[in-house]
Amino acid sequence: MKILGDEDLNDGGLMAVAIDALEAAFLARAGDRLISPPRHHVSFGDRGDLVFTIGGILGEAPLAGFRVYETFGGAEHCQIVAVWSVDDARLKGIVLGERLGSLRTGAIGGVAIRHLSAPDARSVGILGSGAQARTQLAAAAAVRKLERARVFSPDEKRRAAFADEMERALGLEVVPVGSAREAVDDADIVIAATASRAPVIHAADLKPGVHINTVGPKTCDGHELGLDIADAADVIATDSPEQTRAYASPFFLAGSGHEHRMADLADIMAGRAGGRGSPEDTTLFCSVGLAGTEVVVASAILDVLGAPA
Amino acid sequence: MKILGDEDLNDGGLMAVAIDALEAAFLARAGDRLISPPRHHVSFGDRGDLVFTIGGILGEAPLAGFRVYETFGGAEHCQIVAVWSVDDARLKGIVLGERLGSLRTGAIGGVAIRHLSAPDARSVGILGSGAQARTQLAAAAAVRKLERARVFSPDEKRRAAFADEMERALGLEVVPVGSAREAVDDADIVIAATASRAPVIHAADLKPGVHINTVGPKTCDGHELGLDIADAADVIATDSPEQTRAYASPFFLAGSGHEHRMADLADIMAGRAGGRGSPEDTTLFCSVGLAGTEVVVASAILDVLGAPA
Repeated sequence: MKILGDEDLNDGGLMAVAIDALEAAFLARAGDRLISPPRHHVSFGDRGDLVFTIGGILGEAPLAGFRVYETFGGAEHCQIVAVWSVDDARLKGIVLGERLGSLRTGAIGGVAIRHLSAPDARSVGILGSGAQARTQLAAAAAVRKLERARVFSPDEKRRAAFADEMERALGLEVVPVGSAREAVDDADIVIAATASRAPVIHAADLKPGVHINTVGPKTCDGHELGLDIADAADVIATDSPEQTRAYASPFFLAGSGHEHRMADLADIMAGRAGGRGSPEDTTLFCSVGLAGTEVVVASAILDVLGAPA
Repeated sequence: MKILGDEDLNDGGLMAVAIDALEAAFLARAGDRLISPPRHHVSFGDRGDLVFTIGGILGEAPLAGFRVYETFGGAEHCQIVAVWSVDDARLKGIVLGERLGSLRTGAIGGVAIRHLSAPDARSVGILGSGAQARTQLAAAAAVRKLERARVFSPDEKRRAAFADEMERALGLEVVPVGSAREAVDDADIVIAATASRAPVIHAADLKPGVHINTVGPKTCDGHELGLDIADAADVIATDSPEQTRAYASPFFLAGSGHEHRMADLADIMAGRAGGRGSPEDTTLFCSVGLAGTEVVVASAILDVLGAPA
């Protein structure tokens, strides 16, 4: 039984491990072997909730586990993810902290980029300079032979720091630029990972054949991308159509007509729904964080890292 | 943040800590401050379930947390109990293994003995020689000035080993005896902690004024005590009337009429239901393992033990 914390999850190689684990999880989902029930909330009066996403994967080497986090309003949050190997009823380990969650979300983006972006994509435009922007770019670099990236976020210092750090971490040219438009106009892949509740780019800013991941806000109340980008997209996919329907505020595509053509990424991977058809297709991936996948990523990381409790 | 395992929970002094924690939990329950929703099961196909008891305590120094265990059918089981301090949203710690659960069940028995048995009880009769029998006797010793105990279980070696071990651990005379009747006939307190599905003693075996804890089977399908003991009892109490109604097989008192006079131990403690009225009263406590209490016990143990992760 291993217990891992954030400090154990800094190895850059773990992104590839997480992406491969999610690849397997999405294929399990396509085969109805991913266990992914709705979140389970327990309320502690007016103090907040404990929120559980319980899930796993059936079939060969079945896994079970959960993630839990609290909404008690503290400055720091420590999630717990635990994984059992079902065959021998063994608790494989526990992963504590926040890094697993961003690694997981990054890796979901990586699977989408692998299956939806142009195979010869070389350049990335990044909107945002936070933790999600970092893991999304790392995921993109793990699945495509990237040569360059441009990053925009409103704070000049933050985007410069992001560029410095990611250039070193990934060994590719990362340039901070002064506008969202400039970040994306030449990009084969666009990553929107902002906290913006108003669209940060427009469809006209993008070049033909682009693939876009939207990781930030995407409800009717606030969305970092506008409907014009959905209008321009030949393919719209998500990791969890059911979760897009379960938001407290409706999903930003609700009522646009586009929600009906939104495909499950798992179905695209399994060949049951159409993906990119030509180099000029624009593809849009709406990342919502498929429940149950933390367990699958944690399991793969526990397999490769040795840190006895 | 502390992580504790079974090996950290061997200190005999922890039983008193657990009993005091449960005392507070029962008073919180009487004041509607104990959070104790029904168990939450998630099924992994035909392989088994993950089962969560989520709970905590509101009011001063509020706590939240959960216990989780699996039913995947392995030889060993590792429960996880995690506790947050709600005020500062801090994960206080995690307790792994099986000892916390038996400490908790023992301590529930201890609270019942403290509030229902004769204050001058000196002798205990124990039926069963397993983990629950051990923790129940330790709990009795923590709340009453015991002088002697007798133990019966069908296996002579096991009851002898139990007597040896508990005599050393608790510093009181513990004698193995050859029949259930002999174990209980002189006892002020009787602890039934067997796996028997048929009654192991009869009301006529008991002396007036006895208090009985039943920890083993107590459904209509199988019960270690018979209705004659309920008939003889002046007071019948349980730690969770709602859990007695939620068993898959009905509770052994269902349909007997006695289920309607079964009191909540928390109400007895708070003076809202009658307890022992005279030295001749027979009192019966049906232990079902009030959900949410693992978290309270774990929290108290994390407070007294220091074992940094």
